[in-house]
Amino acid sequence: MSSNARGLLFIVSAPSGAGKTTLVERLVEQLPNLRMSRSYTSRLARDGEADGVDYNFVSRERFEEMIAAGDFLEWADVVGNLYGTCANDTERLLEEGFDVVLVIDVQGARKVRAAGLDTTTVFVMPPSFGELEHRLRSRSKDSEEAIQRRLQVARAEVAAFADYDFVVINDELTAAVDRLRSIVVAERATLQRMWGAVETIVRTFS
Amino acid sequence: MSSNARGLLFIVSAPSGAGKTTLVERLVEQLPNLRMSRSYTSRLARDGEADGVDYNFVSRERFEEMIAAGDFLEWADVVGNLYGTCANDTERLLEEGFDVVLVIDVQGARKVRAAGLDTTTVFVMPPSFGELEHRLRSRSKDSEEAIQRRLQVARAEVAAFADYDFVVINDELTAAVDRLRSIVVAERATLQRMWGAVETIVRTFS
Repeated sequence: MSSNARGLLFIVSAPSGAGKTTLVERLVEQLPNLRMSRSYTSRLARDGEADGVDYNFVSRERFEEMIAAGDFLEWADVVGNLYGTCANDTERLLEEGFDVVLVIDVQGARKVRAAGLDTTTVFVMPPSFGELEHRLRSRSKDSEEAIQRRLQVARAEVAAFADYDFVVINDELTAAVDRLRSIVVAERATLQRMWGAVETIVRTFS
Repeated sequence: MSSNARGLLFIVSAPSGAGKTTLVERLVEQLPNLRMSRSYTSRLARDGEADGVDYNFVSRERFEEMIAAGDFLEWADVVGNLYGTCANDTERLLEEGFDVVLVIDVQGARKVRAAGLDTTTVFVMPPSFGELEHRLRSRSKDSEEAIQRRLQVARAEVAAFADYDFVVINDELTAAVDRLRSIVVAERATLQRMWGAVETIVRTFS
């Protein structure tokens, strides 16, 4: 398999507040061949967000057309705003040889698996419920009600860890990024992934 | 699963001259929880080698007693000298929670697999036959005949890559060590391995 071989698809899920976005941003910085898939959203851009950088911002109408056309690998309604991963965008990156990481929730991960894609899935776990609560309170400007809702969602989602290939406990950022990075690097070294490259080498022995 | 959980067993194999010993020495330096299993050998210690450090040096008679007693996980006769991995030594390290790496040849790896041990196996590949030949000639004081014999063995062994879980091409030392290290770190993060620790965290959510 040459370096232009099809890329690998990774899914990272975690309850809100477990720090998955920061983790994956650091991960992508360390691995030039790994790309985050840019989501589409129907919500308006916040200050500092740019179209085509943070998200692809589209109207709700356009988003619903894309749903109807089957353009999304997965999509979700998050408190009234729609977010989705475009199947074609992801496929194009994989075909170009990039490894792609989707940062999506437990339901999104189920849809991607159900679509029959070959994926490596990682569940990021906070070290404890107490720590998750602490992080949500200290970093967010959310109301108490919103925090309680997030914690309730986390309670429901956390049991889904059992559906994932790997679990990374986000106890300490650098160590957790290293674990995530190791999973990506190791997946690139599996027998299946290396088969083509190794067969080429073996031929030089005969 | 606590940090005192049973360790993981890794096997690293490679044709002679592929650089597996240097690779694994660097690997063990980077991962304090990973230990190389110290082999037993019937050959005499060379200058600079110490008993209980480089090898456990035993008499041929004692080695053969150990074979008869079933003490070895695997052993091999290498040009008249016996080398073996003691099953009890390995088991003790695993029970103490250390991950253990066995640097053994293709036949040894087959014996360990056949013994039913749960292992993660890595085949280290030289980048090409020409490069392997170059390395053997430039580093060793072996006779031309000995080099030809090593290359012949390499030809026979290299096809065994297909029996391994992972393949690491040793094109560049630092990159190859990083790949090996990533495989160990990722194996520690598999769902199966993390199950106990994660269940403990999940209980804090209820």
